[in-house]
Amino acid sequence: TAWCARVTESRPFDIAIIVLIGANAIVLGIETYPDLGVAAPLLRTLEWIFRVVFVAEITLRVLAYGRRPQDFFKHGWNIFDFVVIVAAFLPGLHGDSAMLRVIRIARVLRLVRFFPGLRTIVAALLRSLPGVTGFLALAVVTLYVYGMAGWLIFAEHQPDDYGTLGQAVLTLFVLLSLETLPDLMEQGMALSTWTLVYYISYVIVTVNLLLNILIAVIVNSMEE
Amino acid sequence: TAWCARVTESRPFDIAIIVLIGANAIVLGIETYPDLGVAAPLLRTLEWIFRVVFVAEITLRVLAYGRRPQDFFKHGWNIFDFVVIVAAFLPGLHGDSAMLRVIRIARVLRLVRFFPGLRTIVAALLRSLPGVTGFLALAVVTLYVYGMAGWLIFAEHQPDDYGTLGQAVLTLFVLLSLETLPDLMEQGMALSTWTLVYYISYVIVTVNLLLNILIAVIVNSMEE
Amino acid sequence: TAWCARVTESRPFDIAIIVLIGANAIVLGIETYPDLGVAAPLLRTLEWIFRVVFVAEITLRVLAYGRRPQDFFKHGWNIFDFVVIVAAFLPGLHGDSAMLRVIRIARVLRLVRFFPGLRTIVAALLRSLPGVTGFLALAVVTLYVYGMAGWLIFAEHQPDDYGTLGQAVLTLFVLLSLETLPDLMEQGMALSTWTLVYYISYVIVTVNLLLNILIAVIVNSMEE
Amino acid sequence: TAWCARVTESRPFDIAIIVLIGANAIVLGIETYPDLGVAAPLLRTLEWIFRVVFVAEITLRVLAYGRRPQDFFKHGWNIFDFVVIVAAFLPGLHGDSAMLRVIRIARVLRLVRFFPGLRTIVAALLRSLPGVTGFLALAVVTLYVYGMAGWLIFAEHQPDDYGTLGQAVLTLFVLLSLETLPDLMEQGMALSTWTLVYYISYVIVTVNLLLNILIAVIVNSMEE
Ligand code: NA
Ligand code: NA
Repeated sequence: TAWCARVTESRPFDIAIIVLIGANAIVLGIETYPDLGVAAPLLRTLEWIFRVVFVAEITLRVLAYGRRPQDFFKHGWNIFDFVVIVAAFLPGLHGDSAMLRVIRIARVLRLVRFFPGLRTIVAALLRSLPGVTGFLALAVVTLYVYGMAGWLIFAEHQPDDYGTLGQAVLTLFVLLSLETLPDLMEQGMALSTWTLVYYISYVIVTVNLLLNILIAVIVNSMEE
Repeated sequence: TAWCARVTESRPFDIAIIVLIGANAIVLGIETYPDLGVAAPLLRTLEWIFRVVFVAEITLRVLAYGRRPQDFFKHGWNIFDFVVIVAAFLPGLHGDSAMLRVIRIARVLRLVRFFPGLRTIVAALLRSLPGVTGFLALAVVTLYVYGMAGWLIFAEHQPDDYGTLGQAVLTLFVLLSLETLPDLMEQGMALSTWTLVYYISYVIVTVNLLLNILIAVIVNSMEE
Repeated sequence: TAWCARVTESRPFDIAIIVLIGANAIVLGIETYPDLGVAAPLLRTLEWIFRVVFVAEITLRVLAYGRRPQDFFKHGWNIFDFVVIVAAFLPGLHGDSAMLRVIRIARVLRLVRFFPGLRTIVAALLRSLPGVTGFLALAVVTLYVYGMAGWLIFAEHQPDDYGTLGQAVLTLFVLLSLETLPDLMEQGMALSTWTLVYYISYVIVTVNLLLNILIAVIVNSMEE
Repeated sequence: TAWCARVTESRPFDIAIIVLIGANAIVLGIETYPDLGVAAPLLRTLEWIFRVVFVAEITLRVLAYGRRPQDFFKHGWNIFDFVVIVAAFLPGLHGDSAMLRVIRIARVLRLVRFFPGLRTIVAALLRSLPGVTGFLALAVVTLYVYGMAGWLIFAEHQPDDYGTLGQAVLTLFVLLSLETLPDLMEQGMALSTWTLVYYISYVIVTVNLLLNILIAVIVNSMEE
């Protein structure tokens, strides 16, 4: 077990696993192409090799905990690894089932554990959330109020866009990309010139909000 | 009245009202969906419960001022609460009138008073305005001058886009989203290659202006 | 003349002129609407009032220089005022000529002289130019090289977009808005998958350049 | 050779070459226009003048190294100059071949060596890369995972957009411009409302990532 611990903490072990996960990702990508021909059985063989090696990897990791294998499951990433690798062997998961594909794609996410930098970034992203919560709450209130107002104003004439609160909020979310602005404003104008107040105020308010969320994030990350 | 003051300033009271306003917002959202069936009378009952509780809430708040109930109306949010809650009882407002819906949506905005953070953000947004006033004035002058120029150049060939100063300014506002740029430039090219000067200068000038407004806002908020 | 100097430097004089220029701008805007009916003669009368007052204004300003009226023309804004106000009286400029409209619109720009803040902003915008000159030069080189390459690759199959260097550069300028990206990439794909290298590298390079111009401007304006 | 060194290091020599490269670029641009008529032979003559002068230039530069001409090839830019100028004389490259055009366009890139500022910027761009590598890795992982998921979800109903991993990643790359968002969301909605989770999460995750890359670049360049 001391040997297992030494191996699983060694640099070559990490690199070998990273290369394997990368190869696994490439195999998954190739499988999305039709008419693989002679390559198909090769890909299936590779998949079985990945499975065997990943099981060996996780066995080594568990053994590295020596007499207290239950400690292995005290770390989030270990649990994730275990679930993702073992799940591929569940009975009922045959070659082309969507569930099996999801599990195999999830295996690619194991890459993140090998790059501390990535984990730092994810942590930083999560840490920047509190600073913008107020703005996000304002954004939700804004979407709700404009959604209700949009439903009141347009439900009758544009039922596809504003027929229900859900549709209205979706329309307003997509409008954040400014992509549908010319179209929606034209349809609004056909109803009444006053709808300009609705759209122009919405664009100014949300651009302003997004801008302030951006600034809050910048200021946050500079203070660190 | 001392008891009223203690109640209305207590945390559980705030939380209860927040939950009620949230439930109110959800009920309003559900009502926008058609074919509610058996849920319709339930929603109507809930609306009456909200009304009764909100009236009770506001009565408590007024009573909390003891012998000087008129002081209640010295705070903006109190006036807003009072108007929005009492207006629902105005005669002539039956179930589906748009006016009643507006009043009920306005009740959701009462949420803001319970989140000091939101008020801080709104105050910060307003405080950042003076720093960008100069740029906004420049933006208005730019829109006016390009609008008049656009009317001079395009009024005859694109009356829908540039027929009057109002239409021209609207066209230029929508152009800020860059969404209509390829279309407008193509139509301009059909008239004369020189119209490129109009559109390219407009895009560069306004992107530059928006950029500088952005920077002014960032610098402002960093100095605080 | 001492009285003239005192008047032209007084606050009420400035405010009166600002109000008049604003009224002038509004009149110009109203004139873009058709079917003015009875308002038309009123607008024409107002235009004559503006002319008379502006001539009086500029006469006062010249007289304020006393024995050395030629000093009046030593300031850029004075020359602009003089040209713009006097040009309206040139023979051959009748009611609806485009030239006269341009002159009258130019009169609105006189507003800028009354707002030192605006002049500061314009000066700041100009001052930030040197810091980004290098990036702008890179942008020009990038547009030229991608334009020539685009002409080499697409001239035959998309003559409207890449038929000449001029058309290619225009296509690439509009592409900066990302608006035509899906369309152009699809047409490129129809030719060869390798055209993806062209478009993806162009988007990444220009977004990167624009980003760095943005940063250069921010850093510049923070150092002040 | 001392004279050669003095000449090639003198300011007028640099300016002359810059002017020639600029003229070369303009000639290349003019050649992209059809029906040049009498100008065609003039352009061909100019091209030969450029060739002769550039060969003279490079000969001077080599001679400036005196007894050790091989040292000339120790600098990247010198090698680039040599290859680009000499390649135009390769046998088999006649007037209109694409290869010759590429070589002549490459000659324009020689401009960069004369502007140390440009080289500084390119160096700065490259230096800012390490700071954003983590985010770029996250972006690649995100594109891969969303690409695989998109293939699983949409391959059957939108084979043109998500038929293979390559197509899915391309669709998601173009979606970064937000240009295709309304269309894709509508097609997704026709399949299932749950596809909203896919698109909305993708937009939020990638906008967040791009934002953090932007911030990393700003913070990096401010620390310098
Ligand atoms: Na579009
Ligand atoms: Na767009």
